[in-house]
Amino acid sequence: MPDVIDLDDPSDVRLTDYVALRDSSLRKHLEAERGLFIAEGEKVIRRAIEAGYRPRSFMLAPRWLDSLRDVVGDAPVYRVSEATAEAVSGFHVHRGALASLYRETRHTMADLLAMRRLMVCEEIVDHTNVGAILRNAAGLGWDGVLLAPRCADPLYRRAIKTSMGAVFSLPWARLDDWRTAVPTLQRAGFTVVALALRDDAVDVADFAARVEPAQRLAVLLGTEGAGLSTRWIDQADVAVRIPMRAGIDSLNVAAASAIAGYALGRPTAPATLAP
Amino acid sequence: MPDVIDLDDPSDVRLTDYVALRDSSLRKHLEAERGLFIAEGEKVIRRAIEAGYRPRSFMLAPRWLDSLRDVVGDAPVYRVSEATAEAVSGFHVHRGALASLYRETRHTMADLLAMRRLMVCEEIVDHTNVGAILRNAAGLGWDGVLLAPRCADPLYRRAIKTSMGAVFSLPWARLDDWRTAVPTLQRAGFTVVALALRDDAVDVADFAARVEPAQRLAVLLGTEGAGLSTRWIDQADVAVRIPMRAGIDSLNVAAASAIAGYALGRPTAPATLAP
Repeated sequence: MPDVIDLDDPSDVRLTDYVALRDSSLRKHLEAERGLFIAEGEKVIRRAIEAGYRPRSFMLAPRWLDSLRDVVGDAPVYRVSEATAEAVSGFHVHRGALASLYRETRHTMADLLAMRRLMVCEEIVDHTNVGAILRNAAGLGWDGVLLAPRCADPLYRRAIKTSMGAVFSLPWARLDDWRTAVPTLQRAGFTVVALALRDDAVDVADFAARVEPAQRLAVLLGTEGAGLSTRWIDQADVAVRIPMRAGIDSLNVAAASAIAGYALGRPTAPATLAP
Repeated sequence: MPDVIDLDDPSDVRLTDYVALRDSSLRKHLEAERGLFIAEGEKVIRRAIEAGYRPRSFMLAPRWLDSLRDVVGDAPVYRVSEATAEAVSGFHVHRGALASLYRETRHTMADLLAMRRLMVCEEIVDHTNVGAILRNAAGLGWDGVLLAPRCADPLYRRAIKTSMGAVFSLPWARLDDWRTAVPTLQRAGFTVVALALRDDAVDVADFAARVEPAQRLAVLLGTEGAGLSTRWIDQADVAVRIPMRAGIDSLNVAAASAIAGYALGRPTAPATLAP
């Protein structure tokens, strides 16, 4: 039986976990200091808890209580009006349900180095792009995502939302060190593939045709504006490109991750040999 | 020599084109009634004008005047402080430059029916997704995009921004009628391909292997939640699916358009026959 507490004062200290959710720099400090993250919407909250993350509390508009009753466990449930939810969080909470959960380190870089197909993000600072890459990697059957130290936080609310909860199901970890990441992947047996629009890069389809199903592949994805660093491109085993119409900007990095994930993420043996 | 007018009253009637840019329902009426659209940021404004759209006016923070001086032509330039820009538009204008331009119907459905590779959006109501689909279609060499009547407006500010200006360079048009769209495409010689996660759908790679370079292809993309309507799937010549890991939600429709655009958007003849 959940412990339901009605609150109507937006400044109530019990609602501190939920303040100013649109202020990403404030949230960054608050969430790190308190070791929490926020999940938004019934579906995403449910996925976080089913994946084993422990709730600290819930802030729910009245109509959402019933639909989440089975997952709240012992955590306090703060029942608030939509107006109070908005006053606390700083925006209209469309889905009327927020949960604060304890952060956990689920996987280390070593765990991911034991896998077969990885996406590796260099400096993706946009939370939406990080979430979309996680969703694409999960949907297209990749094993995990590695994030360079400067990448946006996958457990930030908007990244979670864009990932549709893939951040809870797909293993991911931070790289220990940007400088040594590529050689570390190579020592672990990965063929390291830089996705880059260089003229001398190999067409991704031509490269895909040479990939063995059992081969370990790590695809490097760079920040949208500048792309991958020269360091990572030069260290990689191969640079591949997605053919683009002349005169058009590069694709958004999330779209590029979808195409690379599709083209390189599964065995490319001829259809006649497939089971 | 542009006509530069300093304004500091946010309620000045000359700034009406720029009011409440985050209020999408208000903007929808205002932009239709006045026949205008808003472009944001120097790069996007420049692309709109280079593509031949005529500016009504500009609202610029002082530092942006020089960088746009060569494209403003005879339209009035309202020079405002960042505070005034924010008070008018309702948000912090990061890029400090806004232009209001005259809407024009550039292409009709008949124009697009004469092309070879089309993406067709059924009910994509999210401006970001419409913009991303246009960007992917342009980048991957597709000829144009058709939009069902209920799709979001490609000339809405956020769609333009996400498209990186592809909305100005890539032909697009509204479908005259949702009900007859698929038979109309078929009569025009298109093989109509529904992208759907049905069990009986063909793997997109298997279908791609059978596409002839000269074949006319129209790929149907449905709304993210519910996917394509049964009507469109049933009317299509073939349903294809992107293979997904079990238990994962479908991809975001923009990611799906990237993969379909990559897989089906170019000749798939064996590499040995390519020039």
